[in-house]
Amino acid sequence: MSQESYSEGDLRNTGMSLKHDREWDYELDRIVDAVHDRDAKKVGLQFPEGLKRRGPAVADDLRELVPDDVTIMLSGQPCYGACDLDTFLMRRTDVFVHFGHSPMKESDKIIYVPLFSNVDVEPIMEESLEELPDPDVDDEVGLVTTAQHMNLFGDMREWLEARGYEVHTRRGDDRLTHEGQVLGCNYASADVDADHILYVGGGKFHPLGLAMEHPEKKVVIADPVNNVVTVADTEKFMKQRYGAVHRAMDAEKWGVIFCTKIGQGRFDQAQEIIDGNDDAYLITMDEVTPDRLRNFDMDAFVNTGCPRITTDDGPQFHKPMLTPGEYEIAVGNKPLEDLSFDTFHGTW
Amino acid sequence: MSQESYSEGDLRNTGMSLKHDREWDYELDRIVDAVHDRDAKKVGLQFPEGLKRRGPAVADDLRELVPDDVTIMLSGQPCYGACDLDTFLMRRTDVFVHFGHSPMKESDKIIYVPLFSNVDVEPIMEESLEELPDPDVDDEVGLVTTAQHMNLFGDMREWLEARGYEVHTRRGDDRLTHEGQVLGCNYASADVDADHILYVGGGKFHPLGLAMEHPEKKVVIADPVNNVVTVADTEKFMKQRYGAVHRAMDAEKWGVIFCTKIGQGRFDQAQEIIDGNDDAYLITMDEVTPDRLRNFDMDAFVNTGCPRITTDDGPQFHKPMLTPGEYEIAVGNKPLEDLSFDTFHGTW
Repeated sequence: MSQESYSEGDLRNTGMSLKHDREWDYELDRIVDAVHDRDAKKVGLQFPEGLKRRGPAVADDLRELVPDDVTIMLSGQPCYGACDLDTFLMRRTDVFVHFGHSPMKESDKIIYVPLFSNVDVEPIMEESLEELPDPDVDDEVGLVTTAQHMNLFGDMREWLEARGYEVHTRRGDDRLTHEGQVLGCNYASADVDADHILYVGGGKFHPLGLAMEHPEKKVVIADPVNNVVTVADTEKFMKQRYGAVHRAMDAEKWGVIFCTKIGQGRFDQAQEIIDGNDDAYLITMDEVTPDRLRNFDMDAFVNTGCPRITTDDGPQFHKPMLTPGEYEIAVGNKPLEDLSFDTFHGTW
Repeated sequence: MSQESYSEGDLRNTGMSLKHDREWDYELDRIVDAVHDRDAKKVGLQFPEGLKRRGPAVADDLRELVPDDVTIMLSGQPCYGACDLDTFLMRRTDVFVHFGHSPMKESDKIIYVPLFSNVDVEPIMEESLEELPDPDVDDEVGLVTTAQHMNLFGDMREWLEARGYEVHTRRGDDRLTHEGQVLGCNYASADVDADHILYVGGGKFHPLGLAMEHPEKKVVIADPVNNVVTVADTEKFMKQRYGAVHRAMDAEKWGVIFCTKIGQGRFDQAQEIIDGNDDAYLITMDEVTPDRLRNFDMDAFVNTGCPRITTDDGPQFHKPMLTPGEYEIAVGNKPLEDLSFDTFHGTW
């Protein structure tokens, strides 16, 4: 998702643009140990977009701690999640560090530094009680958060339990590292027996995906980074999805995108669409951006890569961009009622 | 070079946006033979930006000629030259075809289809005589063209010779396939004993690079695609270069870009800059675009990748973007008079 597409109502305010100072723990000791253990000459550092500007300072700190002949390399590839691994840098460095996300899959090649937040979550949880049911009436509540706040997940649970709630949590599937963790493309941890889900974390990107995936649940957002409590409202996005599906119903030529990023490949799904439609063409790319598709003479696109590019950035593309499920509806294989959020499972 | 950066005065009108219809020869027989020889199941096709919209029709034609179980994949990666090889697609397909450019390096893995133009070059060459010296006064003229017109290079030479010129040509270095060929980043084929160089080909992208590399020569552009004769005028671009160098003289923090594309890597150059400047940071990426650099808190950038991104797209970046040679001037290692066009030599 490219920077120029940021706009009002964008879902991707992930709390990285902080309104207050925060000290991250970059866990330099772990990195330095790995440099010594492996006698490393090249160290690669990959930061999410919102933290890229901290990269030089982290590199400076590291340079002080490692031998002079070690070269530090910063990844300039776009990075919005654990699926955005810079495999070039990973393969060409002796130590490769991915900051800000938890492992999508454990690997000896990668040091994951989660960058836990030290923001106090209790004040905003207190405020969020106004949007949750009285525990005397309905005490079932699901609890989810993101990698940044996993360090406080136990505290969050205890805090809710102390106020009379039965807190439902689960680990989700193997795309998720932690119990209660959500990703932008995976909300399996919210498949719990509760009509209310409390999301504690920065931004609306994750809870809006959660609400699209679980339209039957009320998703309460307790955002300790921006210090605000809201309820996820997916109406605008659902309207956009229906609009895109309807516009794509007239399409003849389809571009079927296979994303070549290690964490975003669903080749079988792409192949299946191609095999079933003579007017569908397989297009491979890593970053799926409007300018890369503009030169293809297609009537509509299906994106088997990141569902959030389809859902959130869809209006930026010059032609309708659908998820694989939405494609089935547009070509008449499934009824419109089947429209649902596209989630991503498994690792690589 | 991203599409959104196209603007007035852009150098990249390479004649691909044709004002008249033209039939390309996609050399499907060569591709079909390779599919049969290798019992291929996956075929990858990579087109330059201006020809991407023809991809589906070429895929359709190929599908008719190969077994049903062969999957055709179109590269969606940006492609502006032979250096923009889609190595992902190349490695994951049994037959990989790169259209529109001549080989930067021969490889059994790659079928290069040059897509020769069938435009008649003689009428525009006739017109270009007005900008060339009278052969009775100065009969030395250099002749260059691009991959698209190489099929007519012998004819061009004979045509000039018949009009009394001594035509100087050379092959350049090993980055260039053919005698007389130029690339956007390499004009070694114009290192000839002539004050006038005649460029026969579409667009101004190549001749403007040539004129920047050889400021002492008059570069006459005979463009048979857009049917126009002009003389390359680099003034606007040279002013931009001087402006960027001057603005970068105040920079403290430098981002040094190492381009990870197979045909654009100059690691030693990047490493040398880093080693000599404690305030320089190595940033690795494939596509060098303004949005990818905006999140880095740098005062200026040095691009060791494609020089044309620096020269032509420079003003699109939020901070000064210099070539390695310009960097040496900006930090005071060399005088301003040393400013010259950055050319790219060798293959990979």
